[in-house]
Amino acid sequence: MSSPDAKRVKTNDGAPYELIYWPGIPGRGEWVRLLFEEAGVPYTDHAKEADGVSAVLEYISAENVGDATNPPVLASPILKHGDLVLHQLPNILLYLAPKLGLAPTEGDGVFFLNQIVLTLLDGFVNELHDTHHPVATSLYYEDQKPEAKKRSKYFIAERIPKFLGYTQRVLDSKASGEGPWLYGGKLTYADLTLFQCLDGTKYAFPKSIEKLQKSGKYDGVFKLYDTVKELPNINKYLESKRRIPYGDGIFRYYPELEEE
Amino acid sequence: MSSPDAKRVKTNDGAPYELIYWPGIPGRGEWVRLLFEEAGVPYTDHAKEADGVSAVLEYISAENVGDATNPPVLASPILKHGDLVLHQLPNILLYLAPKLGLAPTEGDGVFFLNQIVLTLLDGFVNELHDTHHPVATSLYYEDQKPEAKKRSKYFIAERIPKFLGYTQRVLDSKASGEGPWLYGGKLTYADLTLFQCLDGTKYAFPKSIEKLQKSGKYDGVFKLYDTVKELPNINKYLESKRRIPYGDGIFRYYPELEEE
Repeated sequence: MSSPDAKRVKTNDGAPYELIYWPGIPGRGEWVRLLFEEAGVPYTDHAKEADGVSAVLEYISAENVGDATNPPVLASPILKHGDLVLHQLPNILLYLAPKLGLAPTEGDGVFFLNQIVLTLLDGFVNELHDTHHPVATSLYYEDQKPEAKKRSKYFIAERIPKFLGYTQRVLDSKASGEGPWLYGGKLTYADLTLFQCLDGTKYAFPKSIEKLQKSGKYDGVFKLYDTVKELPNINKYLESKRRIPYGDGIFRYYPELEEE
Repeated sequence: MSSPDAKRVKTNDGAPYELIYWPGIPGRGEWVRLLFEEAGVPYTDHAKEADGVSAVLEYISAENVGDATNPPVLASPILKHGDLVLHQLPNILLYLAPKLGLAPTEGDGVFFLNQIVLTLLDGFVNELHDTHHPVATSLYYEDQKPEAKKRSKYFIAERIPKFLGYTQRVLDSKASGEGPWLYGGKLTYADLTLFQCLDGTKYAFPKSIEKLQKSGKYDGVFKLYDTVKELPNINKYLESKRRIPYGDGIFRYYPELEEE
């Protein structure tokens, strides 16, 4: 309820949600899906519609300059909510989470959650992506294998422990509150983000993650992963056909990248 | 002004601003500085204080688990505003910009600005950084020169044009409004962000940027760069000793990375 003298700002509350992303891989679309699934809020997932590819291509076309309200987008995932069109994964999550009950709607909590999410995506998405594409996104993996092997060595030895260590520190902080959660003593979109980051990294580097789990240094992180996986709505989603298997997206399983 | 029945939320309004970042390079701290400088708002820049290095080290220490309010931080820049401690550059900018008059304080505009800023930082900071450090941040440039040369070739040929093209599309959008600005017909922190991204990229890859400028495809982008550079407060800052010269930070000049 807005107070009587609150300014009237046009919002899209009540409008349907649409996710526009490439079909066939979980990719960067998956973090958006997890928010909708946990919240139990209906959404159209264009990756599973006949217009999946063409919807993305239309938005990212060099000819597309947006409209009077919306600037153009560079890449997917894209969120359409009524007349609003947003891109950039952490931005979409920031927009959605308070509306879906997965972040506070006022105060500074949203900035704490945003920084946790940005950090997790930096490590487990952006940096991880470049383990198989360290030279250029436009080249095949096969054309950058020696560089991928080098980068993966350091990613496994230095970067995964760094980002897991950070996540454990966040859990060890008083600001994380009671329970297994990252912030404020309750489930937020940061927890869902961590789940998908770790789930993908387990797929890409299974031996490395197993070893790090056995070290006992990140028990809170792995406990949180298990907790999210068993949330009723998340669990139902993961068991459903809506959950797309990993493939040639961000998270790829190339066993040679894990070999000593 | 809050409405009479607005909930009372504790804020740090009126508290002093402090930037905690490494001394000696503009680095990721520079985007934060530009907001303060344009707004004419006083801030303590610890990079220029005796405690510059130790302030960063204290925050990023593996022993630091934040406090009851603030989760711990992974890396600098760090913003301290009263009791609040934030990290992650795009998050700090998102927090500051509405308070400094460089973003709307309500409505969806802040999400459009955030997505533009995230995209610019993805291209001209994160991807650019890896042109000189494609294998590992922990290695010297000299130990990853062949890989750096390969990555730079694709960065120059594909990625700089991609991100400049995106920026020009944002300017061509009706949503950019009147004048040279990226969004809503007035100066915002997205414009300041673009300035610093392009300024650093010009330093790192001067020949490539000159060639792209001469192509005439990105005239709006270069005009916006010039406009921001001549803003009175920005110009005064750039001419002052407070502006730290580029060095061994994100933006480095290695002529061999530009050679054919």
